Amino acid sequence: MIQPPRPSSQTRVRMRAISARQSRIREDRVATEEPLEIRIDLGGDVRSAAVTMRTPGADFELATGFLLAEGIIREREDVRQISYCVDPGLTAEQRYNVVTVRLAGNRPVDFDPLNRHFLISSACGVCGKTSLDQLELQGAVPLPDGPVVPVSVLTGLPDALRSRQRLFDSTGGLHAAALFDADGSLMAVREDIGRHNALDKLLGWAMLDGRLPAHRGMVLVSGRASFELAQKCVAAGVPILCAVSAPSSLAIDVARRFNLTLVGFLREDRCNVYHGSHRIQVGEADLERRNRTG
Amino acid sequence: MIQPPRPSSQTRVRMRAISARQSRIREDRVATEEPLEIRIDLGGDVRSAAVTMRTPGADFELATGFLLAEGIIREREDVRQISYCVDPGLTAEQRYNVVTVRLAGNRPVDFDPLNRHFLISSACGVCGKTSLDQLELQGAVPLPDGPVVPVSVLTGLPDALRSRQRLFDSTGGLHAAALFDADGSLMAVREDIGRHNALDKLLGWAMLDGRLPAHRGMVLVSGRASFELAQKCVAAGVPILCAVSAPSSLAIDVARRFNLTLVGFLREDRCNVYHGSHRIQVGEADLERRNRTG
Repeated sequence: MIQPPRPSSQTRVRMRAISARQSRIREDRVATEEPLEIRIDLGGDVRSAAVTMRTPGADFELATGFLLAEGIIREREDVRQISYCVDPGLTAEQRYNVVTVRLAGNRPVDFDPLNRHFLISSACGVCGKTSLDQLELQGAVPLPDGPVVPVSVLTGLPDALRSRQRLFDSTGGLHAAALFDADGSLMAVREDIGRHNALDKLLGWAMLDGRLPAHRGMVLVSGRASFELAQKCVAAGVPILCAVSAPSSLAIDVARRFNLTLVGFLREDRCNVYHGSHRIQVGEADLERRNRTG
Repeated sequence: MIQPPRPSSQTRVRMRAISARQSRIREDRVATEEPLEIRIDLGGDVRSAAVTMRTPGADFELATGFLLAEGIIREREDVRQISYCVDPGLTAEQRYNVVTVRLAGNRPVDFDPLNRHFLISSACGVCGKTSLDQLELQGAVPLPDGPVVPVSVLTGLPDALRSRQRLFDSTGGLHAAALFDADGSLMAVREDIGRHNALDKLLGWAMLDGRLPAHRGMVLVSGRASFELAQKCVAAGVPILCAVSAPSSLAIDVARRFNLTLVGFLREDRCNVYHGSHRIQVGEADLERRNRTG
């Protein structure tokens, strides 16, 4: 039997590198992001312990380290075997997204600590369906086209965020997320030690303030753009997600499926557009607009 | 009735600022990290939807944004009321760590999507006990004293990590965690899109390789030091955790409770020690040692 290829830790993508005056297609490599479900097999009693979004590679080590930190295992002898899922109903991709750790049964396992991380209540999490299908099941729908934003507006966003962030963050330890209108005006900034929390606070504010769906909104996050951040923008109807740093492979997949404009490495006067460049105006048209508006 | 004070988004701490030749106590502010449990109240049927480690502030917005992203709510009218937990058995701190969102019941709620994030199986998660008590229940024990490491060894770690990281990370999107011996020799590096995954991979490798508890080990992480990272080091018996960036308040609490040396802002020739400076040798003794060993 031919083994399916293991997923790589890097994914090759094509993106559009944009600066004030030029725009060209380039190859790029981004970190692969895929879900990993960790299962515990205690003498035939198989339980799902966690799903984490991770970069493929060293999956058995990841599962081991997770169970160690949770107090489920304490020494090497507590692990009898570690294997990928052999369920024949899985696709090749999914096969490498489920790891089962068979415990030696040397000591009684207290599953309670896992409750902090929430034991899955029933069988197959990521196993049976992909992350993107899951989003559709949650009611996510493709974003409508528009607005079209000059690249000069985009490149002004990081400074706007930093000037507001300085007021709040004197600790050097916070992620920030900001919501802008399509003309570049800053609507709100939220900060948190967790990047997904910063975005939840921002979009939760927008919802409570009656501003959703924000079909003319742009979100800027201070770090990387992962699956979860792209998912949250889609749920809030925000068509443009910009990150100061890199996107993940799965964030790009979300962008493609749901017509989200995904911008990475938004720094100084340039950025990389990983999907949805139809919402970004470049070059002469952009220059003309800047002349018109002064 | 007097309301307890709300937790601040910043926490004042005393730490030891160390460079090659001097060491002095200073005041610092770090980002507060506390668990937030989000509960859903659907006409009296209260369910726990998630626990997230967050910076206090904008908690109602955070809960709203989380439920929006999960597809539990879709518009403002789906939310009837949001409140902090009023359980009289809670301490003042815990009271602000549980938010209940009462849904309007406008539409049937599909709880299935939450399974991806693992529905908690029974009642009180963070509500009944603190995060630190939880760690003790998981079997975490205080680390033994030692080793004592010259500050010059510590300040050499980031370069060692970066030189190895360059080989792997061409994506600009990965967190790294490295394990060193007390003499500064690099044992392993692991990378992942999630910082907790990078550390799980690293410590899982150490366990499978028979190297735990690593009582002479030092971990360096490329970003910030949060509660979870400190917890994982304690579980693996690693006595020194260094971060290139800032620690959180709860990471410092873990360090104090479990005798972990927690180093932040490890850059160039200096660092801040937030707990456990008895494991760090500074000044003349350090200079003497460097002379001895060349």
